[in-house]
Amino acid sequence: MTTDTPMQLGMIGLGRMGANLVRRLMRDGHHCVVYDLNESAVRELEGEGAVAAGSLREVVAKLERPRAVWLMLPAAVVQPTLDQLAELLDVDDAVIDGGNSYYRDDIARSAQLAPRRIHYLDCGTSGGVWGLERGYCLMIGGDPEPVARLGPVFRTIAPGTGSAEPTPSRRTDGTAPEGYLHCGPSGAGHFVKMVHNGVEYGMMAAIAEGLSIIEHADAGLRKRTVDAETAPLREPEAYQYEIDVGEVAEVWRRGSVVGSWLVDLTADALARSPKLEEFTGRVSDSGEGRWTVLAAVDEGVPAAVITTALTDRFQSRGLGEFADRVLSAMRSEFGGHSEKRSRP
Amino acid sequence: MTTDTPMQLGMIGLGRMGANLVRRLMRDGHHCVVYDLNESAVRELEGEGAVAAGSLREVVAKLERPRAVWLMLPAAVVQPTLDQLAELLDVDDAVIDGGNSYYRDDIARSAQLAPRRIHYLDCGTSGGVWGLERGYCLMIGGDPEPVARLGPVFRTIAPGTGSAEPTPSRRTDGTAPEGYLHCGPSGAGHFVKMVHNGVEYGMMAAIAEGLSIIEHADAGLRKRTVDAETAPLREPEAYQYEIDVGEVAEVWRRGSVVGSWLVDLTADALARSPKLEEFTGRVSDSGEGRWTVLAAVDEGVPAAVITTALTDRFQSRGLGEFADRVLSAMRSEFGGHSEKRSRP
Amino acid sequence: MTTDTPMQLGMIGLGRMGANLVRRLMRDGHHCVVYDLNESAVRELEGEGAVAAGSLREVVAKLERPRAVWLMLPAAVVQPTLDQLAELLDVDDAVIDGGNSYYRDDIARSAQLAPRRIHYLDCGTSGGVWGLERGYCLMIGGDPEPVARLGPVFRTIAPGTGSAEPTPSRRTDGTAPEGYLHCGPSGAGHFVKMVHNGVEYGMMAAIAEGLSIIEHADAGLRKRTVDAETAPLREPEAYQYEIDVGEVAEVWRRGSVVGSWLVDLTADALARSPKLEEFTGRVSDSGEGRWTVLAAVDEGVPAAVITTALTDRFQSRGLGEFADRVLSAMRSEFGGHSEKRSRP
Amino acid sequence: MTTDTPMQLGMIGLGRMGANLVRRLMRDGHHCVVYDLNESAVRELEGEGAVAAGSLREVVAKLERPRAVWLMLPAAVVQPTLDQLAELLDVDDAVIDGGNSYYRDDIARSAQLAPRRIHYLDCGTSGGVWGLERGYCLMIGGDPEPVARLGPVFRTIAPGTGSAEPTPSRRTDGTAPEGYLHCGPSGAGHFVKMVHNGVEYGMMAAIAEGLSIIEHADAGLRKRTVDAETAPLREPEAYQYEIDVGEVAEVWRRGSVVGSWLVDLTADALARSPKLEEFTGRVSDSGEGRWTVLAAVDEGVPAAVITTALTDRFQSRGLGEFADRVLSAMRSEFGGHSEKRSRP
Repeated sequence: MTTDTPMQLGMIGLGRMGANLVRRLMRDGHHCVVYDLNESAVRELEGEGAVAAGSLREVVAKLERPRAVWLMLPAAVVQPTLDQLAELLDVDDAVIDGGNSYYRDDIARSAQLAPRRIHYLDCGTSGGVWGLERGYCLMIGGDPEPVARLGPVFRTIAPGTGSAEPTPSRRTDGTAPEGYLHCGPSGAGHFVKMVHNGVEYGMMAAIAEGLSIIEHADAGLRKRTVDAETAPLREPEAYQYEIDVGEVAEVWRRGSVVGSWLVDLTADALARSPKLEEFTGRVSDSGEGRWTVLAAVDEGVPAAVITTALTDRFQSRGLGEFADRVLSAMRSEFGGHSEKRSRP
Repeated sequence: MTTDTPMQLGMIGLGRMGANLVRRLMRDGHHCVVYDLNESAVRELEGEGAVAAGSLREVVAKLERPRAVWLMLPAAVVQPTLDQLAELLDVDDAVIDGGNSYYRDDIARSAQLAPRRIHYLDCGTSGGVWGLERGYCLMIGGDPEPVARLGPVFRTIAPGTGSAEPTPSRRTDGTAPEGYLHCGPSGAGHFVKMVHNGVEYGMMAAIAEGLSIIEHADAGLRKRTVDAETAPLREPEAYQYEIDVGEVAEVWRRGSVVGSWLVDLTADALARSPKLEEFTGRVSDSGEGRWTVLAAVDEGVPAAVITTALTDRFQSRGLGEFADRVLSAMRSEFGGHSEKRSRP
Repeated sequence: MTTDTPMQLGMIGLGRMGANLVRRLMRDGHHCVVYDLNESAVRELEGEGAVAAGSLREVVAKLERPRAVWLMLPAAVVQPTLDQLAELLDVDDAVIDGGNSYYRDDIARSAQLAPRRIHYLDCGTSGGVWGLERGYCLMIGGDPEPVARLGPVFRTIAPGTGSAEPTPSRRTDGTAPEGYLHCGPSGAGHFVKMVHNGVEYGMMAAIAEGLSIIEHADAGLRKRTVDAETAPLREPEAYQYEIDVGEVAEVWRRGSVVGSWLVDLTADALARSPKLEEFTGRVSDSGEGRWTVLAAVDEGVPAAVITTALTDRFQSRGLGEFADRVLSAMRSEFGGHSEKRSRP
Repeated sequence: MTTDTPMQLGMIGLGRMGANLVRRLMRDGHHCVVYDLNESAVRELEGEGAVAAGSLREVVAKLERPRAVWLMLPAAVVQPTLDQLAELLDVDDAVIDGGNSYYRDDIARSAQLAPRRIHYLDCGTSGGVWGLERGYCLMIGGDPEPVARLGPVFRTIAPGTGSAEPTPSRRTDGTAPEGYLHCGPSGAGHFVKMVHNGVEYGMMAAIAEGLSIIEHADAGLRKRTVDAETAPLREPEAYQYEIDVGEVAEVWRRGSVVGSWLVDLTADALARSPKLEEFTGRVSDSGEGRWTVLAAVDEGVPAAVITTALTDRFQSRGLGEFADRVLSAMRSEFGGHSEKRSRP
């Protein structure tokens, strides 16, 4: 428990992340007014100590000024909710968008609220399903004043300094060691979160590729088709290993250079299911990875690894099929079956 | 018909390429002694004017010294055939390997024949099923003397100067404008052919990707699933085109910067089958592309495009599935279904 | 010379491409009214038979209705020119934008002119400095009627059917074999041209990488630094080739699978300058490549090769330097110089 | 301190890693006989409690059978040292190669020692300059018996279970949670370490690219050259952020999905030097990354991200220059300066 003064916060959207944010806030003594279209989600948190609200208007009514209302909503619902909220809030109130909005929308939304002097903060929130326990990493954009005012809220949600060793060379002040950061004006928070997810794609792909190379270190033990279409393995004796990739992930968790939360999670997944047969390998992508690539292209910055990681996800879902059929068609044209294609 | 003196050549291996080489040679007045395990292939060419042989020994017996024997064999059969031939040939005879051998094998084979002063030429041969008509591009490695001696043979097989406009700035002599080139000592021919195929992979992929982007220019007309896992298309109005990719390939054949034989072939394939439904998109790779990447890595030369083209072929055949399952597992770990994975 | 009826065309912008389009049109009997801010460019074409104009208004005045005005302008000048022209033109007149506009701008411009029933055609034009001689490949977007009306103009500018062999399997009609294509509604022409340039980036990179691998086939002959930071070449004996890459480009022009206009041009460049010392290797990119990648990402289509080719151009201009410094910093952190970084 | 029985170990090679291994072993009560060509390194450790040796022979003489001798040597020195050691050791003795040998050399070395019944263990050792404090992650190949026998040594060198939270789903026994793993027969240890470094390359590149995209989020504030060669930034208003990348790295250390030791180190480097001006961005690669790519190609496993990370290091050192000059030459051919290149 921090020593900060308790604050009031409205939470709109009580999915897993919204609900866990409320729990983490209440644990630390803050007061939450909660609302969701799904009434049972509201009831559940009311049972845990939150103040229930039946509408946006009620959320606003139950908060003291200057208010703070946090949106934890699917991307498609943010704008209409914000449009309604804008009519209900007063000068100096603050809206925090904690979802995965595109940072360019933040710029527009901030401009939309500015004439009414309502603050709009974009707050990229990383931590997933473990956030309740570990805390969430917060990347925030918007005006400095409301960011400062909401310090106790951010401090509670973030993991805190104790969650990692101090950075040895660090001398500067600031909130980053607590796990939250005011990155800049509107959009800066979601910009940094967007790139965070791009980095995440690249790191995940690196780990997955490496484990796949290890999983296939038995290539020399497998029978290969022998025909003109299949490249033979020249030195099968060099690929005779049957290595337990789950154990490899586990050992990499300690003392290695690749030690990371993603390796921790991978070790966990492989401990439960050594061959991961329950997965099909169709890997979704959900916006931030794409936007990261668009930003890199706009900036003219090489980001080949992140881009490749995104492209590979497209491939995993079969989106390269037309291109692959074109390749097969070309190979057929120049390499085979000429009898069917003689010139007139 | 060239004005060169007719030469004698033994051809071992009468698959499509071997047989067409013989036809092209005979058309130009050369004399061919032909052999294949498949007797009917021998008979067919005998009917067209070739001298049939029933064994390697007979091939050798029917040629005058210094002999020239061309191997057009599957990679796996080259070495045993060469071992037998080496016993039958004499000083100054030449063996030409016209297949897709790894250039490192050429170095070893050349060394194997050297003590007996038999020449070994490695001859990368490009042209596919159209070679009989267009001629074959020949990339040759080995000693200069037998390469020069066999000039009339190479000149006949190659497309000849008339097959492309002269290069405006070219002043040097040499045989490259005729479509064959002595690239260097043993292995140099197959080295250049190997890289040629690497370039081919990259060019093919570029064309296929481009046509795929055009084929999907109707993305804004298609329904997308709306859920947290699917990145929404922000500006569907910009992707409302239904463009005929076959017509695009056809128009690119004339005057465009991407004009190429591969675009010609693609236009042909799409003219026959606009959606290429007969192909599954599982794209084989057959050695040279892999070896090209290995060479680039050994040399420390960046070859990201060629490497990516190779990797994409692996992807097209499902070889990335384990890595993709690892990705799905990680996503599940940090993003979903926490209820099943709570800590003890 | 075609048998089409001669047409009238206004040409705005007499840079190299605009001027050469006029020349090609006049050669074929068409009448051109020409205008450029640079008066001497106007005089020069007047001397070759064009009708000179001193202003946009004069161009319009000197053309009969329905008029056709072709813009061949730098991207930044298209919109203001169009704004002025729109005031001068009449119902059924057509503006053709032959430059490298972003296809999304075409959609907007077409909508801007629609209320006045002026047609806007976007016409991607490929051919570069050789177009006067070879003809230009034209990829056109807009309404069908003005595209049909301007057929004689497009037919003259395009290379014509004789510029490539007929596609063997082709049975459909259409203009693609003449070298121009109506790709779809507004923007479709520049969309296809944009992707064409993306393909061009990929093909160029494939060729350049391949020649670089061949150029470095002498890696085993070069001295390498021996230290812990430099990966040793395990088998230097496999990299002993000094191959003339200009000769390789020349031989690939005939009969090979990679035969293409780009290989033709490369052979020409290397014939003039075997080591290309006059180039620094800082490779520009000029919009279309970036837009192609953005389109692929929006569509969710894998385009790893085109994307990599773009990224490599960024790298060639040093735009990856910050990322590379971060890598060096990490390597220093975990691998070296610990004495300077001891924990407090 | 563990409760294991103290063991005896010979250490050959007292560079930073070798010396720190000795210190970590002695701290835990093990007895070390140390040798290096550099006498002062031997003296220094003697001063800290090690037994000094003046030759390989002396090392062997001072150890009781069955002996264990650990080699911590530059790659080039391993084989000659092993050749000498092989003559001195007895049946059942064990040699551990803790350096970065290529796993294929391990297979050969193990076979070399097998007839004399001397064990050869390959032990990939990760941890860098922080290993003395954090412990080293050990990936071991070779016969099970000596791996088991040397358990107390490995246990001391490895970080131990306390260095990371337990993996929640893990039920299996084994040593991986202590930070060392017997991966399989000879070569398996270095194989896994090799791939570990490949993963490291990919993760590092992902982080570096992401921070670079954030560093350049001010692209809209910078002046761009306006010419036909430079792609304009269409929406400069979206790139107006001046974000402190060091603070971003710091905040990502807590609660984010990308949390990792590499991000820890990056935050430390940026805390010391916010713009990293002391680095030039020429990033070395030292063997394992290359070998990982070769293995992926041999296995036919897509590893696009790791490969791209390697290629980018080549680029950072200017190794793509020839290819880039070829690109510039092509662009000049088709796009510019035609006057110098007219056909004869």
